[in-house]
Amino acid sequence: STMWSVSTLLSKNDNAFNNNPKMSENGLMSRAKVLTIDTMNPTVKKVEYAVRGPIVQRAVELERELSEGMKKPFVEVIRANIGDAHAMGQQPITFFRQVLALCSYPELLNDSTFPEDAKSRAHRILQSCGGNSMGSYSASQGIDSVRQDVARYIERRDGGVSCDPDDIYLTTGASDGIVTMLKLLMCGEGAARTGVMISIPQYPLYSAALAELGAVQINYYLNEENCWSLDITELQRALDEARLHCNPRALCIINPGNPTGQVQSRECIEDVIRFAAKERLFLMADEVYQDNVYADGCQFHSFKKVLFEMGPEYSNTVELASFHSTSKCYMGECGFRGGYMEIINMDDDVKAQLTKLVSVRLCPPVPGQALMDLVVNPPQPGEPSYDNFIKERTATLSVLAEKAKLTEQVLNTVQGISCNPVQGAMYSFPRITIPKKAIEEALDKGQQPDMFYCMKMLEETGICLVPGSGFGQKEGTYHFRMTILPPTDKLQILLNKVKEFHQKFTQQYS
Amino acid sequence: STMWSVSTLLSKNDNAFNNNPKMSENGLMSRAKVLTIDTMNPTVKKVEYAVRGPIVQRAVELERELSEGMKKPFVEVIRANIGDAHAMGQQPITFFRQVLALCSYPELLNDSTFPEDAKSRAHRILQSCGGNSMGSYSASQGIDSVRQDVARYIERRDGGVSCDPDDIYLTTGASDGIVTMLKLLMCGEGAARTGVMISIPQYPLYSAALAELGAVQINYYLNEENCWSLDITELQRALDEARLHCNPRALCIINPGNPTGQVQSRECIEDVIRFAAKERLFLMADEVYQDNVYADGCQFHSFKKVLFEMGPEYSNTVELASFHSTSKCYMGECGFRGGYMEIINMDDDVKAQLTKLVSVRLCPPVPGQALMDLVVNPPQPGEPSYDNFIKERTATLSVLAEKAKLTEQVLNTVQGISCNPVQGAMYSFPRITIPKKAIEEALDKGQQPDMFYCMKMLEETGICLVPGSGFGQKEGTYHFRMTILPPTDKLQILLNKVKEFHQKFTQQYS
Repeated sequence: STMWSVSTLLSKNDNAFNNNPKMSENGLMSRAKVLTIDTMNPTVKKVEYAVRGPIVQRAVELERELSEGMKKPFVEVIRANIGDAHAMGQQPITFFRQVLALCSYPELLNDSTFPEDAKSRAHRILQSCGGNSMGSYSASQGIDSVRQDVARYIERRDGGVSCDPDDIYLTTGASDGIVTMLKLLMCGEGAARTGVMISIPQYPLYSAALAELGAVQINYYLNEENCWSLDITELQRALDEARLHCNPRALCIINPGNPTGQVQSRECIEDVIRFAAKERLFLMADEVYQDNVYADGCQFHSFKKVLFEMGPEYSNTVELASFHSTSKCYMGECGFRGGYMEIINMDDDVKAQLTKLVSVRLCPPVPGQALMDLVVNPPQPGEPSYDNFIKERTATLSVLAEKAKLTEQVLNTVQGISCNPVQGAMYSFPRITIPKKAIEEALDKGQQPDMFYCMKMLEETGICLVPGSGFGQKEGTYHFRMTILPPTDKLQILLNKVKEFHQKFTQQYS
Repeated sequence: STMWSVSTLLSKNDNAFNNNPKMSENGLMSRAKVLTIDTMNPTVKKVEYAVRGPIVQRAVELERELSEGMKKPFVEVIRANIGDAHAMGQQPITFFRQVLALCSYPELLNDSTFPEDAKSRAHRILQSCGGNSMGSYSASQGIDSVRQDVARYIERRDGGVSCDPDDIYLTTGASDGIVTMLKLLMCGEGAARTGVMISIPQYPLYSAALAELGAVQINYYLNEENCWSLDITELQRALDEARLHCNPRALCIINPGNPTGQVQSRECIEDVIRFAAKERLFLMADEVYQDNVYADGCQFHSFKKVLFEMGPEYSNTVELASFHSTSKCYMGECGFRGGYMEIINMDDDVKAQLTKLVSVRLCPPVPGQALMDLVVNPPQPGEPSYDNFIKERTATLSVLAEKAKLTEQVLNTVQGISCNPVQGAMYSFPRITIPKKAIEEALDKGQQPDMFYCMKMLEETGICLVPGSGFGQKEGTYHFRMTILPPTDKLQILLNKVKEFHQKFTQQYS
């Protein structure tokens, strides 16, 4: 496996199933734990999530050591491991936060300093809440009026393709929707076990969820040589091999790509839809970066829109779930855990089961639902907050575009690093050449070579990246994922440090 | 089974596994769905959640019909099905909402109308957020400073028993924590499959989670004749029977009780802890109603406190998870999905796995974390908001106590209804006598008799209750769960209507 495993590192307790009480040092009767590493859920042990793995834990330690005055070769830890925009200094959209404050404390509706459009949005949201309070549970599928606004947003986005609010489920971030959909698809044992196709490199939520659910992860490799494009022949290869040992049922796509930053062409999306129809696969389109498109000539096409433009042969049959979130794009409001999914062509009985399933967790967080509403229903031309909203949104997106370009440019000046264009999303995933001696030292230590590389970089420079092995990569290739989110001046410093580190590392191990 | 099943009602699609494309009416090639009721996750189908089941769906329809001007024998639907305080008119605590508004829109920190203590709380919370924004992801375990505040709260609550912030995990409501803990405990197949003991009647999150996880639900019956007390002999009976066909690993307790409203005595808690120690069971204490204690002579005792007062033989060995939430007590802030769990005596390796597992979902909603912080760190004597906070909290809790008493009193005046005292929590769970003829008519319709009863009450009076069969009950007994949350005047009307309905129903079927 090319995936780095937490479980192997953590499994050290051997004396499980020891049911016998024993005497402890102080003479008291003590018992083996009920719950030990050997008696806990084995599928949970298989879960891996590199974005918050040991490298991040070490970064936290280093920050503490720095704050305690310990001397390090750097003065601060720079975190480029996770798409956490506000943590890197991105400012929230003023209008969104005004409305959230009004909803939290409706006394402010009498405050004349708040703009009228913010007040009317807050009023509408509160009207849809039980007892006019965000403290009430919403319907499990989400607040009705928010789902209506989401449906209208999708219709505008997709040039008028119709959207039924009843097909919208609000979620606790996109992750929640993705895991819920995967859960529905689980079925069968042994060779009939559900298989799910995911891109490699992938966002590790997918591998983690599949491991936990006990599903078969079917890897299809993106083509790094062609700007991380998705080739249908590779999909076919992966599927044909998988059919020998499991029941492939779903195909997951991340567009714009995480961690790879590519933006899919319209043609490619059509091909994928045809493939899914032909092979009877449920399509899952992770489209949380839909506003994050930077490269000239690239454009976001939603799977829904393309599907419907392909005509009824496809639009009436292909089952699709599409996911969006408040956490990315120009908003970057990760902490609110807002999101939605749209479900297309789902069997009615299954949909009833989905609705039942989400009801067990009662409802997604209401402030996140309110925020999702603002994202899909922002200030309109003529409203008092419109100009400022556009100014803030444009500024954020153009700075991101600038940083995407800067990242690609600087990294490509380094011998031994090669970086595809960051067409969209928030990450670059450059390929790195690791000298043979370093690979051997890493393997001696039981570490993936790119984990060894990233850990060394963290210790020497304070820069926190995630090794490519956490996302999956072709055997024998090495990468890291780096967000483009630090403020431009800090990003410049970071890129220069990465450059210096790489040169030093290469020299040291050559 | 005494549990009402959604799945049987929903299963109507027979032609699954039909892989052959077929011609549809318009001549286009159509295909059987990938995901059908017969090919979906079978454990999800087994999930039941009566609190938001078909009776609530019918209530929503009735509300729509009323709003469209349809004539009904009532003018409004009164929902007493779910513990959703704000939806029933309970007002939020002013201080909490002020701080949330400040955190949402920090510009307000310059607003002189906000009290200083609200500002200092907001300041502290924002300081602990990346980039000083609630839009940042927090640590997966929750914001450090919030976990510290939770730990200090627990120490105060438990008379000084120490609490390590590292044992605190913030959660997305208590449900999230409960499901996560159950997930860790799953292990084994067939006769070695994990069994989990839950009270009957129970809160259906437990049965739903166990069904979804494929665990064995081990029912122990509370003693209705003795005010829903928990008897150790009954625990032993349930456990001994279960050991014949599964591997019982955990014991879940809800105190104060949901749906049954009892408050456990200290002695009973000690007995339960001794039982768990002797039988090697992981204890899960659902303590979300810890401030909701109304009856004279009753007092909330946390499992943690009792465990530590029983001495090191127990406090060093018994594994315990305790759950709390922002949704109940005097706060009733369900929509924010805030909560925490405290983990005691958990194996270190398992704890590392737990931390890894929660990291996949990134973090609990930050506004919910902020609210949890305020609950455990409310205004202190001498602070400007203290008096008003105490006034609001006291008012809410005394009204609840009043309504608990009123509910018990009125219901017990009805022949054929008998109701234990509502010592705590937010519900009464009265036993109802259903005439034989009504039972037969219900069974003819394929309905549980108490579902038949509650559905009829909804259609005739607009009152939405949940049938006892959704929580589990002794074979041949019938109940409903009713919240005590409607405003006192409305609750009085509701209780009178229940009384009239019951009398009419009894007459009709006698």
